[in-house]
Amino acid sequence: MKIAVDAMGGDYAPQEIVAGSVQAVNELDVSVILAGPAERLTEELAQYNYPKDRIEVESATEVISMDDHPATAVRKKKNASVVVANRLVKEGRASAVVSAGNTGAAMASSLFVLGRLSEIERPAIAIPIPTINGVSVLLDAGANADCGPENLAQFAIMGNIYAEKILKTPNPRVALLSIGEEETKGNKLTIDAHQLLKKSNLNFIGNIESKDIPFGAADVVVCDGFVGNTVLKLMEGMASALFAQIKEAFQTNTLTKLSALAVRPEFRKMSKRMDYSEYGGAILLGINGISIISHGRSNAKAIRNAIRAAKQGIIEGVVASIPQRLTGPIDN
Amino acid sequence: MKIAVDAMGGDYAPQEIVAGSVQAVNELDVSVILAGPAERLTEELAQYNYPKDRIEVESATEVISMDDHPATAVRKKKNASVVVANRLVKEGRASAVVSAGNTGAAMASSLFVLGRLSEIERPAIAIPIPTINGVSVLLDAGANADCGPENLAQFAIMGNIYAEKILKTPNPRVALLSIGEEETKGNKLTIDAHQLLKKSNLNFIGNIESKDIPFGAADVVVCDGFVGNTVLKLMEGMASALFAQIKEAFQTNTLTKLSALAVRPEFRKMSKRMDYSEYGGAILLGINGISIISHGRSNAKAIRNAIRAAKQGIIEGVVASIPQRLTGPIDN
Repeated sequence: MKIAVDAMGGDYAPQEIVAGSVQAVNELDVSVILAGPAERLTEELAQYNYPKDRIEVESATEVISMDDHPATAVRKKKNASVVVANRLVKEGRASAVVSAGNTGAAMASSLFVLGRLSEIERPAIAIPIPTINGVSVLLDAGANADCGPENLAQFAIMGNIYAEKILKTPNPRVALLSIGEEETKGNKLTIDAHQLLKKSNLNFIGNIESKDIPFGAADVVVCDGFVGNTVLKLMEGMASALFAQIKEAFQTNTLTKLSALAVRPEFRKMSKRMDYSEYGGAILLGINGISIISHGRSNAKAIRNAIRAAKQGIIEGVVASIPQRLTGPIDN
Repeated sequence: MKIAVDAMGGDYAPQEIVAGSVQAVNELDVSVILAGPAERLTEELAQYNYPKDRIEVESATEVISMDDHPATAVRKKKNASVVVANRLVKEGRASAVVSAGNTGAAMASSLFVLGRLSEIERPAIAIPIPTINGVSVLLDAGANADCGPENLAQFAIMGNIYAEKILKTPNPRVALLSIGEEETKGNKLTIDAHQLLKKSNLNFIGNIESKDIPFGAADVVVCDGFVGNTVLKLMEGMASALFAQIKEAFQTNTLTKLSALAVRPEFRKMSKRMDYSEYGGAILLGINGISIISHGRSNAKAIRNAIRAAKQGIIEGVVASIPQRLTGPIDN
């Protein structure tokens, strides 16, 4: 199984991307094709031990930066590493693509190069969210800032597949994120989407409020991309603001500094549980292929886990499941 | 100065509401009119020491519960405590109203009884948000689930007044909550609102992302009521999920339990800083009067601080400032 990796995407590219790819081929029974400047990548690879036939380099001479306008850049820079990586999937040379760069560009190149599934009106980014007792999936995490109720209904079906096949949650509890639990609460979008979801054959548990997300109140949290992205980034911001304050609290005096030593192992476990890099990144669902979009700050571990998620998506047949599932449920 | 208080609103009514009102008259140089069942309130008041002429009881025989449909209940139950409390302001017997009950009902009764300012198309709930280095204000926190860009522009002006007059922040930094800092990032609503705000004479610092809110990146955070309510409740949920995990971490063994003792004072300070009851509740801006809407779980301290916020709103002439400010800025 071959996974195409955009070697130049992300804040720590190409070093961490290459390092993560090496980890992946050493540990996960996969092969990797790295897309990027051949010489640079070959040099980078030279410092590692790994089965040489497991990593190829595919030359890509351009890079899309965080400042580039995603759609425009993808159209103009046909030799950008992220575009080349997607093309490898299109041409059948790889079975999935992983990118940690400009999210918009990763999404646009997967959309343009791989195309969307004809049954899906709007592909969505599904992202695993750590909760106090496990992992949920939230979608859309930012692909569609403006959505209609039918889009949300399709996100719910795709999220259900993700929860079943990737998170291995049987009969996932699917919820609509709103601002009140009653079906009449919310904005026009969620009130209309609620009616569609009620009629679906998903295990739809109704509306949940954002405060319940960290407690794992649902396995699949459905919302538009503006709200989803806001939720995701606020979880990140709140966690880092709280940990900054906790760190400061432990610095107060000798006694508190000693306390810090005592609880450190427990806090490490906690922070590991909430660490996005553990979960392998987001997946763009609703396109003709597996496209994993990793955090811009991805380190080697995050890339390794993104490759693991790609592998799982392939094995579980996530892409083929979507049209299968769509022929039934929502049209009832 | 007299403040009308809905004695029957909130999870701990009337006990905590009465207790908070007593605290307020003892400490804040205000008088209170409690709206609710006269006998019950008189009994409740009998256990406290306070200047007797500072608290009156106004009979209100009905109650709007959390399960009532807000607008319908306000129309039907003309003798509900929250409606009566608002009527006291309308009739000039009180200068502001405080309610901790059903948020929708508190809002609906202020809207129906006091009416909106003719210049404001949609009143908004402004709420103080604790950050790592102070307090910001977010609006709309839930009054309007669906908004247009002009609404957001008006919220910005009202939030600016709140920050200046209540939070005492000179030249407040006003930001639009979006999912990207560039003005082209966001949904249709925020992209259009950005253009209006750019033309205003506010200190508009552009878009911020949700992750920057806890770090105090803006003094005034502007968004629609669906997003604002989602942000607010997620901050609450994240804080309580994290503290639950921290509490558990400290219970691991004898050493961690001792550590908990050492850091307890610092953690108390931190949790106090993040405690909504310290900040006196939300205010409904854009109506003909001061209406403070406190958390449903308000205790005596929260009610006391809500009364303090009401007093400040009156002293600072918040209501009169809104039309004054509107004649200038946004129409330029």
